[in-house]
Amino acid sequence: MSTLAELSIFPLDKGESLSPYVAKVIKVIQASGLAYELTPMGTCLEGEFTQVMQTVQDCFHVLEPECKRIYLSLKIDYRQNRTNGLKQKVESVTNKL
Amino acid sequence: MSTLAELSIFPLDKGESLSPYVAKVIKVIQASGLAYELTPMGTCLEGEFTQVMQTVQDCFHVLEPECKRIYLSLKIDYRQNRTNGLKQKVESVTNKL
Amino acid sequence: MSTLAELSIFPLDKGESLSPYVAKVIKVIQASGLAYELTPMGTCLEGEFTQVMQTVQDCFHVLEPECKRIYLSLKIDYRQNRTNGLKQKVESVTNKL
Amino acid sequence: MSTLAELSIFPLDKGESLSPYVAKVIKVIQASGLAYELTPMGTCLEGEFTQVMQTVQDCFHVLEPECKRIYLSLKIDYRQNRTNGLKQKVESVTNKL
Repeated sequence: MSTLAELSIFPLDKGESLSPYVAKVIKVIQASGLAYELTPMGTCLEGEFTQVMQTVQDCFHVLEPECKRIYLSLKIDYRQNRTNGLKQKVESVTNKL
Repeated sequence: MSTLAELSIFPLDKGESLSPYVAKVIKVIQASGLAYELTPMGTCLEGEFTQVMQTVQDCFHVLEPECKRIYLSLKIDYRQNRTNGLKQKVESVTNKL
Repeated sequence: MSTLAELSIFPLDKGESLSPYVAKVIKVIQASGLAYELTPMGTCLEGEFTQVMQTVQDCFHVLEPECKRIYLSLKIDYRQNRTNGLKQKVESVTNKL
Repeated sequence: MSTLAELSIFPLDKGESLSPYVAKVIKVIQASGLAYELTPMGTCLEGEFTQVMQTVQDCFHVLEPECKRIYLSLKIDYRQNRTNGLKQKVESVTNKL
């Protein structure tokens, strides 16, 4: 569970309304079984590095058949032996405010 | 309110524990009066473009005096006439699941 | 000169051909007088933090009048007292290969 | 060859001098056989999506044994049927200046 990721992925050839495509991606993430959290600018995932990267690829492949151009932005924060990072990272900051 | 942003900013010369620095940044964001949301991989802000960029600069300046190296990652999604994007973007996707 | 940045900015409401908009942005960067380098995935800038942020804002404002939705991605690597980072960072890695 | 990527990956637990770690990553990219280009803020790669993602994972695994915390930032621009994107994207903009 030591990998936290944030993924944004969307088509560039479908105009400005992107939520139908984002919804397809979220369904892939839900099917992966990984812990996740929707945020206003992307979706956070948590798992082992290899699982997270597999899920990112599955998200791409769900859009690929219908999109001519796709933009993907991924940030990963790996920390050895971290558990429950989705909650713990925010709490760790909140406790210091 | 048409600008949504996600900001991550942290020192690279202070070792692997970053939450004390993130907390300083969040206090700057709180003082800005902008709507914001803490997420596991960054902080989302909402406001007019110029306000958001001013706040990003204020966040940098609070870390600058004590850090030799700083990494900043900013994503912006500007959409004309959008209001309440922090909530509305997530809802727009959730409604399609 | 201690701030290196990489900027990607493009409209989301204009279809998949983005180079006309990227060219407008590059002209703003050229007019700024900052050192810059075009790369396949963005444009690298170097200058003082405040100058870089002012130029990023100028780039946004050149697109804003004609775009309903704009995506901006910015990474900054600030390092105290660095000079000539655009060249020196790549050389520093190349020397170790 | 329709996938262009930009990868930045570095440890967060090793202090502010990162070029030794970046050099290890570049050696992995060189060994992959993919077209690549070093830039001041990351390394651009070009290939098929699956190859690019495999190489990104190989880069992570070369750092993982010696790092307690790793930050990775990846941007991907996929465009159907594009060839030679590393050169063509920059040329396409330069021609419009």
